[in-house]
Amino acid sequence: MSSKITVIGAGSWGTALANLLAENGEEVQIYARDQKVVNSINLEQKNSKYFPEYRLNSKLTAINDLNQSLRDSDLIVISVPTQALTGVLSQMDGFVDSDTIIVSTAKGIDENTFKTNSQMIKEAGFENVVVLSGPTHAEEVMEKLPTAIVSAADNKESAEKVQDLFMSKYFRVYTNPDIKGVELGGALKNVIAVASGICDGLDFGDNTRAALITRGLNEMSRFVDFHGASDLTLSGLSGMGDLVVTCTSMHSRNRRFGIEIGRGKSMSEAKQVVNQVVEGVKTARAIYKWLDLEDIDLEMPITRQVYQVLFDKKDPYQAVEELMLRSKKHEMESIVDNSLWNI
Amino acid sequence: MSSKITVIGAGSWGTALANLLAENGEEVQIYARDQKVVNSINLEQKNSKYFPEYRLNSKLTAINDLNQSLRDSDLIVISVPTQALTGVLSQMDGFVDSDTIIVSTAKGIDENTFKTNSQMIKEAGFENVVVLSGPTHAEEVMEKLPTAIVSAADNKESAEKVQDLFMSKYFRVYTNPDIKGVELGGALKNVIAVASGICDGLDFGDNTRAALITRGLNEMSRFVDFHGASDLTLSGLSGMGDLVVTCTSMHSRNRRFGIEIGRGKSMSEAKQVVNQVVEGVKTARAIYKWLDLEDIDLEMPITRQVYQVLFDKKDPYQAVEELMLRSKKHEMESIVDNSLWNI
Repeated sequence: MSSKITVIGAGSWGTALANLLAENGEEVQIYARDQKVVNSINLEQKNSKYFPEYRLNSKLTAINDLNQSLRDSDLIVISVPTQALTGVLSQMDGFVDSDTIIVSTAKGIDENTFKTNSQMIKEAGFENVVVLSGPTHAEEVMEKLPTAIVSAADNKESAEKVQDLFMSKYFRVYTNPDIKGVELGGALKNVIAVASGICDGLDFGDNTRAALITRGLNEMSRFVDFHGASDLTLSGLSGMGDLVVTCTSMHSRNRRFGIEIGRGKSMSEAKQVVNQVVEGVKTARAIYKWLDLEDIDLEMPITRQVYQVLFDKKDPYQAVEELMLRSKKHEMESIVDNSLWNI
Repeated sequence: MSSKITVIGAGSWGTALANLLAENGEEVQIYARDQKVVNSINLEQKNSKYFPEYRLNSKLTAINDLNQSLRDSDLIVISVPTQALTGVLSQMDGFVDSDTIIVSTAKGIDENTFKTNSQMIKEAGFENVVVLSGPTHAEEVMEKLPTAIVSAADNKESAEKVQDLFMSKYFRVYTNPDIKGVELGGALKNVIAVASGICDGLDFGDNTRAALITRGLNEMSRFVDFHGASDLTLSGLSGMGDLVVTCTSMHSRNRRFGIEIGRGKSMSEAKQVVNQVVEGVKTARAIYKWLDLEDIDLEMPITRQVYQVLFDKKDPYQAVEELMLRSKKHEMESIVDNSLWNI
């Protein structure tokens, strides 16, 4: 059964997802702001800006008119950065039924309101949100390399509908009921990736990175738990899986940014090297501000040290040393009530 | 307060741990079978076989007589491979008080009895066992690079005693009450590392590896849970942390072995390239045999596929494809009862 699907945003991820859906036999229209991109997709079957070397599926067409693209859509995939989301939502008003499934694919939280993408979408009047998130480089999906991802929704049928649409021989989709846990995992992991890069820039080794990733996941779990989401979600693809890729891959701009900081570059120098938005910087600041504003005593030592290195000119080496020397700990005490020792 | 500590085994890990304890001010004696190693430690302050380039701490001495080395020890660290453990234990009989703390540092399970090292140590009459395990390359500990590890014991005081002895500026020790979960994590991760290597040998990318590591941890959790240990331990250093290092580092022989298999080499060819014991092969076979013998219906698809590739000549590409195409799943259904959807 074919649906009419609109993908908003023709960046690398939007293009990869739209092409995947078309490969699966769906009728897909992709909205691009840039008329040149629209033309290259419609006339040459390629995205000249992001994937000039790939031939796109012929069932994929592009359009430059957002309102037009939204009419009669059975399902809408939003693939724009978090900061552009509000603009898109305002244009959807009146053109999209309130029960249409909206698939949210960006990772990030709003720096001022601390809201996740799905929260913003719901507050704009669209309750039927599905979050698609996981450890996924767009290029590798274009290459049809085996990939796994999570489809999360409050509503089981919606999560399964999205699972059915995207699932393919090389794209495995797992459903998950914990939409907030999935979104927070995707956002928080960028802070740990910055820290991981800092350690690499300081020439620390695999032992240090492993400790950082593990304690980072632990810290993410505390945050997610505090916000009423399930810390078990963080053991899954959108938490641990995404964290591992972001902390170990050279494709990760958050990690690359951290490496420059570890090598002694300033924040603006490091940003210049990476030359793209570094979400982890914003997220670290957002969390730090939130802990401060709400006067919350949540143990997030890595996030606090990252903030201090970036915004208080703290020496990165000293920051790592302080992380190592904190008071001795039981490994699990802050994750869960552990009764084995009756503590 | 100084204790007299004996470290049994002067391989790379035994040497690194003994040196660390000496750096912490402890009086340490290391037992080595090889008289040349004993001489190089005592006369030149280096381990000529494993770390010829490092000067060892002067408080560290070596000895060739195992029984002599065990006399009057307040604490014994065993750092020999799992297959050599039984021999060491038989020589301890009568020379070591039954309440002496025995620190076990090898990772692995016995292929025939499926027992962990701590089980074997307890059955030999030494109940006060502490397992020290985590993501730790010995070379990096010698380099004093920041490292974190877990000290696990049934007895909280023993775990904390070991924590106190090993803790240093660059070596952070967390305690954990779940000795079995810690040991199983260290053993099972080698199977997933072989699978991760196979994917790399097939030229799959970061997406595939992230999915494999995540689903691998999930599979490890099921196994650990079945054996009455805590699957939360697997979110810690000795589970996830060790898994991540082993699946991403070129230092990992299990991963390097898998890469050769993925490239089409036979098992014996791949073993020749690595030229060391590949624990993951033994562990995969042990688990497969155990599932079969006990007729246990535990979902361990990665372990089963690794076994079939290694021992039934299954095509590695087909094995990955089958992992991707298994029936659709809720992400958490097999980790935990999830009530968000009331499933």
